[in-house]
Amino acid sequence: MIVVLTPNPAVDVTYRVAEQRIGETQRVLDVARRPGGKGVNVARVLAAEGFDTRSVLPLGTTGAGAWLADALDVPAVVVPIGDETRTTVTVVDDAHHPTMLGEPGPAVTPAEWDAVTDAVADAVRGAAAFVVSGSLPRGTDPEVVGRWVRAAREAGALAVVDVAGAALLAAADAGADVCKPNREELLDATGAGSEADGAAALLDRGTRLVVVSRGGDGITAYGRDGVAHCPAVPGVTGNPTGAGDAATAGLVLALTGGATVPAALRRAAAFGAAAVLRPTAGEIDRDAAAAFLADLDRPTTDLDRPTDHRDRPGSPA
Amino acid sequence: MIVVLTPNPAVDVTYRVAEQRIGETQRVLDVARRPGGKGVNVARVLAAEGFDTRSVLPLGTTGAGAWLADALDVPAVVVPIGDETRTTVTVVDDAHHPTMLGEPGPAVTPAEWDAVTDAVADAVRGAAAFVVSGSLPRGTDPEVVGRWVRAAREAGALAVVDVAGAALLAAADAGADVCKPNREELLDATGAGSEADGAAALLDRGTRLVVVSRGGDGITAYGRDGVAHCPAVPGVTGNPTGAGDAATAGLVLALTGGATVPAALRRAAAFGAAAVLRPTAGEIDRDAAAAFLADLDRPTTDLDRPTDHRDRPGSPA
Repeated sequence: MIVVLTPNPAVDVTYRVAEQRIGETQRVLDVARRPGGKGVNVARVLAAEGFDTRSVLPLGTTGAGAWLADALDVPAVVVPIGDETRTTVTVVDDAHHPTMLGEPGPAVTPAEWDAVTDAVADAVRGAAAFVVSGSLPRGTDPEVVGRWVRAAREAGALAVVDVAGAALLAAADAGADVCKPNREELLDATGAGSEADGAAALLDRGTRLVVVSRGGDGITAYGRDGVAHCPAVPGVTGNPTGAGDAATAGLVLALTGGATVPAALRRAAAFGAAAVLRPTAGEIDRDAAAAFLADLDRPTTDLDRPTDHRDRPGSPA
Repeated sequence: MIVVLTPNPAVDVTYRVAEQRIGETQRVLDVARRPGGKGVNVARVLAAEGFDTRSVLPLGTTGAGAWLADALDVPAVVVPIGDETRTTVTVVDDAHHPTMLGEPGPAVTPAEWDAVTDAVADAVRGAAAFVVSGSLPRGTDPEVVGRWVRAAREAGALAVVDVAGAALLAAADAGADVCKPNREELLDATGAGSEADGAAALLDRGTRLVVVSRGGDGITAYGRDGVAHCPAVPGVTGNPTGAGDAATAGLVLALTGGATVPAALRRAAAFGAAAVLRPTAGEIDRDAAAAFLADLDRPTTDLDRPTDHRDRPGSPA
């Protein structure tokens, strides 16, 4: 069982128009409406790989939240909130890059976050891993992420965190097993001038592994004992949305299966590339993923011990 | 009681962004979400004027439809449909005209339209007027509008129709008391080369009065006995969305109160202008409406008999 928390789920709407124009009335030719949010994408990739997952989502009870609860195709624990779940609208045509309009998301009360934390603590009992992925709604105390990480660790689950800003620091402080920011998020959260310095800052705070994805520039893991780097699959073009989430799913399922960090990075890189081939976030081309995994160069590494998190040291004081 | 049918209601969403840009990710700074559709605007203006109204709306049971049913602030009979109610997204900033993205709307089945017709026939019993306003969802047989008009007439209610295309012709064929297209809709539906010819075509088909609104160019009524014209209120600027619906509301409440056609036109022009002063469709500035009504020039007309629709002749064969 892998528990996946999406703190700020969304209904992702895509509108196809003949040609995007500012200041005009445009008929929407085609509407696609899907459950979204980074954790939702992670859970859908894991479920398609046959893993038993449970998603935890705070959701509004009308409108977008009710729609999302109804449309979600993975097992979920819904924590009802009073405010409305956000919607993102992406406008596409054949002539321009997509335009994305993102609503800010709901105001979630401290009592509602307590209910989310209770749902996480309940779900992680006996789980192999816990993943929290995606932004926090505006105004959320970032320390709530530390509570989720501690709940997962107390239950003996691998705690994997893909969050940004102060929440990333709180997760590292709480001893998250894996922090997986992208490069910009890492530099932004730590204020470091280099990726290595940023990773070192998170390791110092208490995380065991910092995995940094960079799209076409591959993926790097920084541990206390060394660094591993896996190149990206070359020549893959398509839809990059959700590629990082597929990489997270690959990383998590490899690590929970006892893979070494370099092997887990290869899985992450293969899944990320296989997601680019699919038009919809939260899906991967499974045949391509297998082929990519076979073809990927062996990661360069001095970090090749298995990562059994049950061996982990406590976080530094 | 005034019964108002909105065949294709919408959730109208307005997104404020710092600056509209195509091909970029933009943070939505402010979200406004409102029940929409022309009939909904008409009903809200009537209700604010103290009239007893009942809205009839086919609505999806999840997502936008469920949200709209919950948010609607006028008494309504909701007819559940299987497909999803449409959303419109309007993107605004301080630098450009608004960009409006309109979803096509649901597929409503013939059985669902039968349920709508039953709801209309039930609601119009004893009603003073019936208004149907706004587009039909794609793929709807326009003859359904004729059934609504006949149901209203059989119940003795004034039947007022603001629809376009073949549905406008069907409404005239069924003997609608008032057809209220805008100029483009009139020319488009009838294929006529002039407004007078288009109005004559609808009168020939069986309607008693054709009221054509033209925004800043005023409003004109074509009857079998003559023509009345009311100028627009001069110098009014603001939000024109929903002004035509406020004009319909003014027209309907004047006619059901026994006003002459010229007097009803003045009320329509005053309400339309008073709606422009409000940022939200479905609302009018009531003080301004009263002032406009006092100031408006008397319509030029050779059509000044009262319009008691109970005197109306049957529609021509």
